[in-house]
Amino acid sequence: MANDVHFMKQALIEAQKAYDLGEVPIGAIIVMDDKIVSRGYNLRETTQNVIKHAEIVAIENACKAIGSWRLENATIYITQEPCSMCAGAIIQARIRKVVYGTKDPKNGAHESQLRLFDIPFNHRVEVVSNILAEESQTLIKDFFNALRNKRNTL
Amino acid sequence: MANDVHFMKQALIEAQKAYDLGEVPIGAIIVMDDKIVSRGYNLRETTQNVIKHAEIVAIENACKAIGSWRLENATIYITQEPCSMCAGAIIQARIRKVVYGTKDPKNGAHESQLRLFDIPFNHRVEVVSNILAEESQTLIKDFFNALRNKRNTL
Repeated sequence: MANDVHFMKQALIEAQKAYDLGEVPIGAIIVMDDKIVSRGYNLRETTQNVIKHAEIVAIENACKAIGSWRLENATIYITQEPCSMCAGAIIQARIRKVVYGTKDPKNGAHESQLRLFDIPFNHRVEVVSNILAEESQTLIKDFFNALRNKRNTL
Repeated sequence: MANDVHFMKQALIEAQKAYDLGEVPIGAIIVMDDKIVSRGYNLRETTQNVIKHAEIVAIENACKAIGSWRLENATIYITQEPCSMCAGAIIQARIRKVVYGTKDPKNGAHESQLRLFDIPFNHRVEVVSNILAEESQTLIKDFFNALRNKRNTL
């Protein structure tokens, strides 16, 4: 738990980088043997590549870092509940554990729109939610409030 | 339907490219306004990047080709039922229609393990299945038979 908070703070640092670029502020990091092997933040608008959610960026960076598509024994920390694409990527990569912050009512694939990690695929994932959820949600709310204010003054 | 068969043959050409590289033979193409805008085949082993399923490669190439992450009005042709990651990416990209060949009993996200496209997300996808399913399945079966024979002779 203390560890989860420690690593989630690192994921929040990534989310802030997305915020600073004008991207929906979501961040992720991947940890193996208590060490951070990769980081990622949402880059969808900047790259105009729909795949570049924080989780996917972190997963691709982890594959590169360890030279394998199998991320067994890894834990991914994400500031928000993953969508179906990212939850599916986590299962494909055989990641052992997911820790996330706030939920995503529109697209969340664990507690909001479906329960993807409960389906009996060959690989099962352990999930911990609600870690620094308030910090993560505040960042997202601030982002959308700022966007709304900007639009209203145009 | 004649169109669907025509474009699925193109997806099968992509699947054959994966086969020739020793990858599980799955191919995809993306069509907009009756023209092929991108192609992709499974490159997971070659790249050691877990994200590089045929559908994701085709989606990334389509984003690059049109300079946008929004693939509205696009149709994706895939030789096999997409997994949760790829079905999720299709929803994220707002692809209009999915046409696939054979089903994937282990990981399929439309008729096999779950019905992801039936969940009332903001974006809904039209699905057509079973187009040149036999051709697609034969290619996959041949691949796994050849792999098994190779292992047995080692």
